[in-house]
Amino acid sequence: MRAKVHVFLKPGVLDVQGKAVEQALHGLGWGGVEHVRVGRTIEFDLKDAADPEAELKAMCEKLLANTVIESYRVELA
Amino acid sequence: MRAKVHVFLKPGVLDVQGKAVEQALHGLGWGGVEHVRVGRTIEFDLKDAADPEAELKAMCEKLLANTVIESYRVELA
Repeated sequence: MRAKVHVFLKPGVLDVQGKAVEQALHGLGWGGVEHVRVGRTIEFDLKDAADPEAELKAMCEKLLANTVIESYRVELA
Repeated sequence: MRAKVHVFLKPGVLDVQGKAVEQALHGLGWGGVEHVRVGRTIEFDLKDAADPEAELKAMCEKLLANTVIESYRVELA
């Protein structure tokens, strides 16, 4: 079973990496780019899980996301 | 128009961040986790683009991805 976890900074938390990308894109001539947010995606195979959704949620809460400033979304396929 | 760019290391390129996450998850008791890959996602609003798909591709090639070691996938919505 393939799991995907998307982690983004919560709205309102300053995304400095996003700001840097935005300014770089403006500098390259793409002035129409706005509201850039940079997140990370963690993909992996999950085997022998009794309750994959619950385990995935626990992984996010414990390790994959900093829930103080980040939100996450999980996908199972 | 909202654009999403997913950037991952190409298969065969060592993903040290993925390895670190994998070992950490094993250490927390999730031994069934395998083949962890960590990528990044860049989301932004794109305005006034004549040909959004072509511009997005150019952005990836020039700035968002290092195409020597990374592959990318774009989504427009």
